[in-house]
Amino acid sequence: MVAEELGEVWCIVVAAGSGRRFGGAKQHVDLAGRSVLERSVATAREVCDGVVVCVAGTDDAEALRAAVHADRVVEGGASRSRSVANGLAAVPERAQVVLVHDAARPLASPELFRQVVAAVRAGADAAVPAVPVVDTIRSLDGPKVDRDRLRAVQTPQGFRAEVLRSAHHSGRDATDDASLVEEAGGTVVLIEGERTNLKITEPVDLDVATALLRRSASSVRATDLEHFEGHGADTAEGGS
Amino acid sequence: MVAEELGEVWCIVVAAGSGRRFGGAKQHVDLAGRSVLERSVATAREVCDGVVVCVAGTDDAEALRAAVHADRVVEGGASRSRSVANGLAAVPERAQVVLVHDAARPLASPELFRQVVAAVRAGADAAVPAVPVVDTIRSLDGPKVDRDRLRAVQTPQGFRAEVLRSAHHSGRDATDDASLVEEAGGTVVLIEGERTNLKITEPVDLDVATALLRRSASSVRATDLEHFEGHGADTAEGGS
Repeated sequence: MVAEELGEVWCIVVAAGSGRRFGGAKQHVDLAGRSVLERSVATAREVCDGVVVCVAGTDDAEALRAAVHADRVVEGGASRSRSVANGLAAVPERAQVVLVHDAARPLASPELFRQVVAAVRAGADAAVPAVPVVDTIRSLDGPKVDRDRLRAVQTPQGFRAEVLRSAHHSGRDATDDASLVEEAGGTVVLIEGERTNLKITEPVDLDVATALLRRSASSVRATDLEHFEGHGADTAEGGS
Repeated sequence: MVAEELGEVWCIVVAAGSGRRFGGAKQHVDLAGRSVLERSVATAREVCDGVVVCVAGTDDAEALRAAVHADRVVEGGASRSRSVANGLAAVPERAQVVLVHDAARPLASPELFRQVVAAVRAGADAAVPAVPVVDTIRSLDGPKVDRDRLRAVQTPQGFRAEVLRSAHHSGRDATDDASLVEEAGGTVVLIEGERTNLKITEPVDLDVATALLRRSASSVRATDLEHFEGHGADTAEGGS
């Protein structure tokens, strides 16, 4: 999908989390017939030349690699940053763009992956999908947080390969690779994320994800919108 | 439900929004057989002595009042704060606790309403349900926002009636009544909100809400958790 002369695009899918909030290793849980991890890898494969999966303590890496159709499986590290660094070591030198994706976001669309790659191709050191924050946000350190200035950051995040490599050479820890790049002086571009790209954090999120997959499968969106507008028409608009 | 000597509890359900992100007046949309507004009012009624609904430009307030089983219906104002002030004017003087609830949060549980009331009874000027922020958050004004210090604020929010009345006398505008109270020097207590208490903002949220209602109806939670732990057991834990 990516022209040879532009260099390869690889994706590191990070599945090394302990799933503490979940009560188990959430990436192996079934989501409408396929595991969360398998879904994340499948979408990455649609867009990238290769996929490296980082998992914590797998007994049989080859069996897992085959099961989820990844190119390589590596051991996760003691922190998210270490896991990404381990994944990065398994990405071939010829890769020019590296994406980092949370296995726990199985609903990110191939289109979102493509947009992230395109933003890096266009010159950004890092490209990060982000969505506006819907809820009112308070800080425990003081009441005022201007919601309009906040963005909720998603994955996949995309990087010029050498920028990500040098950011990880610093050995610093971060929950978010874009922050590492930024601390190292790189440019980070925000692109529009997807409201449906939820992160599977608690069991209830699996039901939500299943509902979103069904919605997507039946393509009811256009019909729904007509229905809503029909309802809206008999009620006045405006107000707060 | 509330002892007479402690004064009445009333709830203002704010449905005056234009639903710009929704493409229609979202509060009248059907959610699994009942409108979003009707569901929010019904939960408020389980816990409160009376419910005032604020809507924008209703042609027949009495018909709407009867349809959603509210005690009173008032016109929304030009801003959220004005809508709440209009609602407050329709709350009887004898109310000692006033809740403010977004109609667009039809899944808030009666238990959450009760906890908010209890926190005000226990002495807070305002009680606000809030949940930890799951996503990494960036500020457009600078990269670093410590997610662990942020909370996403929900409704219902509860207030000592005289505190809310005097905060609204200031005539200031806020998206969040607790902020008004805080600016006026009142004490605001955060209580634990509900992950499932989502705000219906876009059409996709209706599918999510429907899925959550089904889940709640079938009480599958305990079974699901066992299932997840079973899966977790054959995979190693730890890592990032």
